[in-house]
Amino acid sequence: MDTNALLAKLHAIDGECRRLQDSMAILQWDQETYLPESGVEERAEQLALLGRIAHERFVCAETAHLLEELGSVTANPGGDEKLPAIERDFLRVTRRDYDREVKLPADFVSEAAKAEGLSTAAWSLAKRNNDFNYFLPHLCTMMELARKRSVYWGYTQNVYDGLLSIYEPGMDAKAVTSVFTPLREQLSVLLKKIASAPQPDRSFLDKKYNTETQALFSAELMKRLGFDLNRGRLDVSAHPFTTSLGCDDVRITTRYFPENLLSGVFSVIHESGHAFYDMAYPAEIRGSCLADGASMGIHESQSRLWENVIGRSRPFWEYFFPVLKNFFPDELRSVTAESFYKAANICGPSLIRVDADEVSYSLHIILRFELEQGLFNGTVKPEDLPKLWRERMKEIVGAEPETDTEGVLQDIHWSMGSFGYFPSYALGNLYGLQFFGSLKKDIPDADAKISAGDFAVIHNWLHENIHKWGRRLDPPDLLKKVTGQNLSVRPFLNYIEEKYSGIYGF
Amino acid sequence: MDTNALLAKLHAIDGECRRLQDSMAILQWDQETYLPESGVEERAEQLALLGRIAHERFVCAETAHLLEELGSVTANPGGDEKLPAIERDFLRVTRRDYDREVKLPADFVSEAAKAEGLSTAAWSLAKRNNDFNYFLPHLCTMMELARKRSVYWGYTQNVYDGLLSIYEPGMDAKAVTSVFTPLREQLSVLLKKIASAPQPDRSFLDKKYNTETQALFSAELMKRLGFDLNRGRLDVSAHPFTTSLGCDDVRITTRYFPENLLSGVFSVIHESGHAFYDMAYPAEIRGSCLADGASMGIHESQSRLWENVIGRSRPFWEYFFPVLKNFFPDELRSVTAESFYKAANICGPSLIRVDADEVSYSLHIILRFELEQGLFNGTVKPEDLPKLWRERMKEIVGAEPETDTEGVLQDIHWSMGSFGYFPSYALGNLYGLQFFGSLKKDIPDADAKISAGDFAVIHNWLHENIHKWGRRLDPPDLLKKVTGQNLSVRPFLNYIEEKYSGIYGF
Repeated sequence: MDTNALLAKLHAIDGECRRLQDSMAILQWDQETYLPESGVEERAEQLALLGRIAHERFVCAETAHLLEELGSVTANPGGDEKLPAIERDFLRVTRRDYDREVKLPADFVSEAAKAEGLSTAAWSLAKRNNDFNYFLPHLCTMMELARKRSVYWGYTQNVYDGLLSIYEPGMDAKAVTSVFTPLREQLSVLLKKIASAPQPDRSFLDKKYNTETQALFSAELMKRLGFDLNRGRLDVSAHPFTTSLGCDDVRITTRYFPENLLSGVFSVIHESGHAFYDMAYPAEIRGSCLADGASMGIHESQSRLWENVIGRSRPFWEYFFPVLKNFFPDELRSVTAESFYKAANICGPSLIRVDADEVSYSLHIILRFELEQGLFNGTVKPEDLPKLWRERMKEIVGAEPETDTEGVLQDIHWSMGSFGYFPSYALGNLYGLQFFGSLKKDIPDADAKISAGDFAVIHNWLHENIHKWGRRLDPPDLLKKVTGQNLSVRPFLNYIEEKYSGIYGF
Repeated sequence: MDTNALLAKLHAIDGECRRLQDSMAILQWDQETYLPESGVEERAEQLALLGRIAHERFVCAETAHLLEELGSVTANPGGDEKLPAIERDFLRVTRRDYDREVKLPADFVSEAAKAEGLSTAAWSLAKRNNDFNYFLPHLCTMMELARKRSVYWGYTQNVYDGLLSIYEPGMDAKAVTSVFTPLREQLSVLLKKIASAPQPDRSFLDKKYNTETQALFSAELMKRLGFDLNRGRLDVSAHPFTTSLGCDDVRITTRYFPENLLSGVFSVIHESGHAFYDMAYPAEIRGSCLADGASMGIHESQSRLWENVIGRSRPFWEYFFPVLKNFFPDELRSVTAESFYKAANICGPSLIRVDADEVSYSLHIILRFELEQGLFNGTVKPEDLPKLWRERMKEIVGAEPETDTEGVLQDIHWSMGSFGYFPSYALGNLYGLQFFGSLKKDIPDADAKISAGDFAVIHNWLHENIHKWGRRLDPPDLLKKVTGQNLSVRPFLNYIEEKYSGIYGF
């Protein structure tokens, strides 16, 4: 069989697996948005079955054979160059995925998918009822499954490194620590300065904002940001998320609190940032394993860039504040764009990660990173998490939750077995500011564009420099290509220091 | 291998197929409710893939082997009696399904599932834009696929009979005609009498009813009818439908028009009737191929019983009118339960089947039955349908639509390839009144229960006599068991004559 025929067969298998994953994404999306309470058990079984089928389809003898045949083509001297670059990338990524996936037994995959469905449902109830013990057995199951997965992959000594590698290829706990240590130090110093400076006025944020009006504003916000509502939608869920049900069906969720206008607004911007990435993969990688983010950290770089660097900037609110004020004319009567901008950037100890300010946000991540490491090296017992959470929150962030709902139960990730995911958010902050440095060089008038509500030039830049690559470039290569640099905390810390010394006047 | 082990293996295959079908139901439900416009093409591909996988899983060599082995057990003298009755039913139904499914090539199944997804989406757009020609190529594709399916099943001479048999096992066009002929005659006579009688007041129905308030009333209506919202939900779609995404996840849809209060209300009751059936299969058949309606006609007997016999009855509105009036106090200020009951039963020529009164409803079906037969015996060309629809509507129902949206494009069925489905609705009317005769004998105070809003006794009776059997009994056997009779138009016509002579006073 010639190379093209072999490739076509491999693409067909990949395509089927992607369609199965998209189908699972639909079932999961529905579970978080519209599933009736009693449907949880059956949904878990449906997901387990589809998970098993997708796994078996991918790691079948045919895939092994195709990869071997294609491997002998590319192993010949000069053989690799015979293939177009995109096919070389496709082969490299497929082989990496295969090598990982083939190590997992089908029963394990199916068991894990089912357990995940039940666990997220239990977490949701436990969070609603502030009942950590109801969730605890599921947490232990998810930990055990995560541990097994990592061991299957060969991480017998450093289980947690195996989990990190799911979200950030090539990154381990040591590498994460080496950036988190200076981050923690310098952010803590900055937060002390901020705490002793006079605070901007935030009285208008304590008003009640009608949630139906918030939803109407969200729709307007998405439209003006450039979210194509023919190719996606916005719904409400307990925890905001983005999911791709297909290349042309990327959905985001948010949640609304009458007493917290900013939470809904910034969740919409954050998730839209994810969606812009997933909506932008070019035709030549559409529907293939390359049509995904380079890593979760790179994905978070997009969401956190939109949420914070763009969404919490002065030019952004110069443009959007009058729009928002049209929706809430009474509540915002005496407020200006400038005072709204400052209030949206108030920093200080807070309980909820997704609503945290940019400065303390990474500290929320560092807390989770430390606890996750402890869970997998045996120094943290799962049953002690609520207590440890309160103690460590007080120490690292400076705030202590009164309930587990606002504490250890606040995030969905552990209930999904996504241990090792959290560092991606803080890495996303770092990547994001490195990318933004290049963007500002290429588009010197970016601020003027933003304050005019013209986001097309930013979309184009992100598309051309980041989105179009999908998984074709690994994070270090992508970063190097776009910025010429390696991962660094400096651009992020410079940005934070400059922005907040401006707001707080020190 | 012993019989129990063989049966366990067959149940495992059946269970997987059901879970795949449930997964497809989720994808289809989402397509009709929340799918963004551009997601249609990919959704069709996802459905095609899952359809193919479900088909291949069912008609695999293992199923053939198990059925053969189990066949030799039951073929021995007395062998059949060794199995519990429920396993005999399971085997009989599985074998029937297998014998049909195995005749369809996997490529055909996948092609049909994909074409259906594209066709329903095209129909939806065509209906919105009153553009029959946009839908026409899809209609032709769906006809061709239906024809092929029927021919695969061996209906080479009478293609339409093969299609009818999907929805009503054992029923053919001749048998349907033999009940539709007296139905048409006597309903037409009755409609003439009604047309010349004085009409009840319906002025209050011409008011505008806020659709958000209608939705709130629907929720209250479902709750009071006994719909368990932990096991299902209500959404909005272009065409009302019921679908099971699992035994504990049965969803209905409706639609709201400000100028047509009754449309939304009776769609909710109709679809709830379907849902009550699908929610009631007992534990011993849950999640198996037996957990479905005996036929579409029997399924429609439940929905139309709830919608009309119960839902358009005087006692029903004695109970529900005060509830409705609380939601629309201004619009219904001077209206009484009695006048609402009469207005909800006004008869006469109308354009839209799902909103038609009980008397003319079957005529809408007879029109479709005639056109469907013509489409498959070659006397009706698909491109002539809009014209023929107008002519035949005028002749049979007495109303002529001005647009195709209100004409040939009004129903989703043909776009799904569901030719032969429509007769089920009229058969459902007949079954329903036969069942209701038995119900009234067993529960002489049924009217008093209904007017007190106590529907439990009716649910229990339907459950005990009809729902609990699922597919274990075929329609003629079920009918005989419950009523002691064969299919007959008499109970329906008697009910219609008595009810409407009361309302119209002749």
